[in-house]
Amino acid sequence: MTSTFNWAQWCASSRWFASLDMTLRGCSQVMFQNNPLTGLLFFIAIFMGAYGEGLPQVAFGCLLGTVVATGSAALIVTDRSALRAGLFGYNGCLIGAALPTFLSMSTLLWVSITLGGLLSVIVTLALSRLLKLWKLAVLTAPFVFTTWSLLLASYAFSHLNPAHLPLAAMPSSVPEHAGYLSLSEIVTGTLQGVSQVFLFSNVASGVLLLLGLGITSRWAMALGFLGALLATLIAGGLGADPHSISAGLYAFSAVLTAIALGSVFNRPGWRVLIYTLLGVIFTVVAQGAFNTLLTPLGIPSLTMPFVLVCWLLLLANPKIISPE
Amino acid sequence: MTSTFNWAQWCASSRWFASLDMTLRGCSQVMFQNNPLTGLLFFIAIFMGAYGEGLPQVAFGCLLGTVVATGSAALIVTDRSALRAGLFGYNGCLIGAALPTFLSMSTLLWVSITLGGLLSVIVTLALSRLLKLWKLAVLTAPFVFTTWSLLLASYAFSHLNPAHLPLAAMPSSVPEHAGYLSLSEIVTGTLQGVSQVFLFSNVASGVLLLLGLGITSRWAMALGFLGALLATLIAGGLGADPHSISAGLYAFSAVLTAIALGSVFNRPGWRVLIYTLLGVIFTVVAQGAFNTLLTPLGIPSLTMPFVLVCWLLLLANPKIISPE
Amino acid sequence: MTSTFNWAQWCASSRWFASLDMTLRGCSQVMFQNNPLTGLLFFIAIFMGAYGEGLPQVAFGCLLGTVVATGSAALIVTDRSALRAGLFGYNGCLIGAALPTFLSMSTLLWVSITLGGLLSVIVTLALSRLLKLWKLAVLTAPFVFTTWSLLLASYAFSHLNPAHLPLAAMPSSVPEHAGYLSLSEIVTGTLQGVSQVFLFSNVASGVLLLLGLGITSRWAMALGFLGALLATLIAGGLGADPHSISAGLYAFSAVLTAIALGSVFNRPGWRVLIYTLLGVIFTVVAQGAFNTLLTPLGIPSLTMPFVLVCWLLLLANPKIISPE
Repeated sequence: MTSTFNWAQWCASSRWFASLDMTLRGCSQVMFQNNPLTGLLFFIAIFMGAYGEGLPQVAFGCLLGTVVATGSAALIVTDRSALRAGLFGYNGCLIGAALPTFLSMSTLLWVSITLGGLLSVIVTLALSRLLKLWKLAVLTAPFVFTTWSLLLASYAFSHLNPAHLPLAAMPSSVPEHAGYLSLSEIVTGTLQGVSQVFLFSNVASGVLLLLGLGITSRWAMALGFLGALLATLIAGGLGADPHSISAGLYAFSAVLTAIALGSVFNRPGWRVLIYTLLGVIFTVVAQGAFNTLLTPLGIPSLTMPFVLVCWLLLLANPKIISPE
Repeated sequence: MTSTFNWAQWCASSRWFASLDMTLRGCSQVMFQNNPLTGLLFFIAIFMGAYGEGLPQVAFGCLLGTVVATGSAALIVTDRSALRAGLFGYNGCLIGAALPTFLSMSTLLWVSITLGGLLSVIVTLALSRLLKLWKLAVLTAPFVFTTWSLLLASYAFSHLNPAHLPLAAMPSSVPEHAGYLSLSEIVTGTLQGVSQVFLFSNVASGVLLLLGLGITSRWAMALGFLGALLATLIAGGLGADPHSISAGLYAFSAVLTAIALGSVFNRPGWRVLIYTLLGVIFTVVAQGAFNTLLTPLGIPSLTMPFVLVCWLLLLANPKIISPE
Repeated sequence: MTSTFNWAQWCASSRWFASLDMTLRGCSQVMFQNNPLTGLLFFIAIFMGAYGEGLPQVAFGCLLGTVVATGSAALIVTDRSALRAGLFGYNGCLIGAALPTFLSMSTLLWVSITLGGLLSVIVTLALSRLLKLWKLAVLTAPFVFTTWSLLLASYAFSHLNPAHLPLAAMPSSVPEHAGYLSLSEIVTGTLQGVSQVFLFSNVASGVLLLLGLGITSRWAMALGFLGALLATLIAGGLGADPHSISAGLYAFSAVLTAIALGSVFNRPGWRVLIYTLLGVIFTVVAQGAFNTLLTPLGIPSLTMPFVLVCWLLLLANPKIISPE
C-alpha cells in the first residue's frame, strides 16, 4: 500500500502526476474501474493489440482521445470528483480507438479525434442532464453517438475516408452453417471479445485486460470473463456468423453488460446473478438486431447493445440498485 | 349477472381459474377491454383466423405469449391490480401472434416467443417508468419494440429464419392505379383490418372480434368499426396500394387509435369525436410513413403508427383526458 | 416609431390587421425574430426566390402554411401571447415551403400543406410538453417531424407524387475532388445558404433575408451571415461535395444555429461567441451525418442538424442561457 500512498502524494503535489492519474483512470473507466494501475495495464494491452493488428494509430488515438476529453472536461466541468475519477475520459478513449479503426490515416483523422474528445464531454454533460430524471448513467452512449456522427459524416466529407467501414447493404439472412463451435473458437471468441471492447481482436490483450480488471476487483474480472463466454455460447447456439463470433464481435458488449449489472450498479447476490444472466442474453439479441439495423447505413453498432440493455434493465428495476 | 358472479367466485377460490381469468383478460386488453368473455371470443377469433391462414402456430403463439407474459409478471410485478386486469398480458399475446407470422417454424421460434413474453414485461416496466413523467400509457409499444428486436435479430441468427418477412429494399413510389375501391374491397379492408390487429386477414374473425368488443362496450365496437372503415376510405383516397388496403393493412392501427382516443382515454362527446377523427387521419399518414421508413430494414411497422399518434395527441392535449 | 405605433393601433382595432400581423410575425420567427416588417421582407424574399426557381407554389405554400398553422393555433391554443408573437406560425411556414419543393403539383398537395399546418401546431404542443422538463424550446422540430412524415408517406400514396425527392440509395463516399472553393463559390454558398432556410437557392433572396434580420437586430444579421460563411468554409475544408456547398446546403442549418446560440438563447459575450463557433462546427458535421443517415430513405435532412446541435449545447450548458 506504500506505493499507492506515494502515488496519491505525488498526484497531490504535482499537476503532471495528477493529469497522468486522471488519464489512466479515464482508461480504466471504460470497464467501470477507478484505478490508475488498471488503466496502465489497459493501455499496455491496447498498445499490444494495436501493434498486433498493424494499426498503431488505434493506440495513439486512445491516448489522444483520453487526454483531450479529460483536458476539455478540466476546463468546463464543475464536478471535480467525477473528473478526477476519470468519468469524463473513457468516452474519449473509445472514440480514439474507434476512429482510426474505421477511417484511413490523415491529418484530419487526428483533428477528428480531438474534436470527438471535446464533443464527448459535451454529449456526456447533455445526456447526464437528460437522464438524471430517471437516475440513469450515461454509460458509453456519448462514445457511441459521437462516433456514429463522425463515421456517418465521413461518407459525406471526402477528406475523411471511411476506408475500413462495413459496406452499406440491404439486410439479408446469415447463411445456415453446419456444426457447433469448436473449443478453440469459443476460447478465442471469449478472449478476443474482451479485447474488442477497445475494437481490436487479440487473445493476449484480452487476458491482460482481464488481469487489469482483477487488480481492482476479482469479481469484475470473473463477470467480464463469464459474460464474454456466455455471449459467445449463446451467439453460437442461435447460429450467428462463426467468423464474427470468433472475432469476439458478439461478446464485447456482453462483457460490459455483465460487469455493469453484476458489480457496479447492483449489490452481488443470487437475484443480481439472474438479472446479469438475462442482461447478457438480451445483449446478444440486441447485438444481432443492431447489426441488421445498421447494415443499410454502413456503420458498426459499437457498444449500443450494452447501453440499451442496461438502460432497459435499470429502468425496469430501479430497486435492485439500492435495495435499502 | 349470476354467471359473472360465479366466475368471480371461482377465480377467488381457485388459482387455476384466476390464472385463466388473467390470461383471457390479457387477450381482451389488446383492444383495451378488461373482460374474460371478450378475451374468450378474441381467442376463438384468433384460432379461426390462424387455422384459416394455415398457420395454427399463430394461435398457439398468442396463447403461449399471453401465458408467459402474465406468468412472468406474476413473479416480478408489484402492481397486482394491473396484473389481474391483464395489463401485463396483451403485449405478450401480440408478440406470440407476430413471431410465428414472420419467422418459419422451429424449436427456437417457441423459445423466442417465451423470451419475448418475458422481455415484454420488462419493457413494459421500463417504459412505464420512462413515460410516467408525462402520464402516458405504454400502449402496445412493448410489443412493437420487442418484436422489432427479435425480427431484426432473426436476420443475424441463422437458426431464426425470417422466411415471411418483407424483403428489404429501397423505398420507391407506389405505382399509380386507376379507379376507386369497390364496395367489396372497402368491406373486406375494414373487417380484415380489425382482424389484422392480431396479424391475419379474415373477415369472419374481424366480425367476431367486433362482437367481442360489443360484449364489453358497444361504443368501443362502433369506434373500432368506424375507425377501420374511415382508415380504409382515406387510404383509398390517397392512392395507397389496393392489395394492402383490402388486406386490412391500413386499418388495424386505426382501429386501436379510434378505440383508444374515443373511448378509453377521453370522455365521449363532440370534441372527442373530432379528436378521434384527426387521430385516424394521422394514423393512416403515419402508416404510410412507417411503411417507407422500414422498407430498407425488411421489417413491418406493426402497431407503431397507432402508438405514436396516440402519444402525440395525448401529449398535445392532456386536458381532454380528464376535463375536470 | 409613429408608423409602428399606428400598426399596433390598427392591430388592436381590427381583427384583419391582427391576423395579418400574426402571419407576418410567424414568418419572421423562422429566424427567431418577432417583427411584422421582418416577416414582410421575408415573404418578399420568398416570392422572389420561388418565382426565380420557377416554383411559385413554394411561395404560396409558405403563405398557406403560415395562415393555417396560425389559424389552427388560434382555435386550440391557450397561450395567446405566444400565438401573437408568431410562435405557432413558423413551422407551418416551413412545411408550406418544403412540401411543394419535393412533391409534384396536385390538389392533394394543398390538402397536405393544410393538414401539415394543423399537424405542426399539435406537434408543437406535444413537443413543448415533452421538452418542458429540460426547459428546451421546440425550435423547428415540429416542421422537421411533420414534413418527414408527409414525405415518407408520399412514397406509399400514389396521389402524393414524391417527384423531386432525392432517390433512395445506399450511402457511399463522396468522390475526392481537387482544389479549393473559389471566392464566388464561397459567396454563393453563403448567401444561397441563407435562402436555403426557406428551401430555395437565390443570392438576392439571401441578401434580402439578411436585411430583414437587420431591421430587427444587426447582431442577428451578422451572426446569420457569419454562420453561413463559416459553415461554407468548414464544409469546403472537409471536402464536401462542391455543388452542395455552393447551393447553400451546408449553410442553412448553421445560419439558424448561429442566430439561436449567439443571440436568442444566450447573452452576447466572448463565451457565447466560442459556444456559437462550436455550434456551427458541430452543425456542419451533423449535416454530413444526416445526409448519410437519410440516403437510404430518400428524404432530406431539413433543419434537423440545427435542432439537434442546439438541443445538445443547451442541455450541456443550461447556465449560459441565464447566467444570473
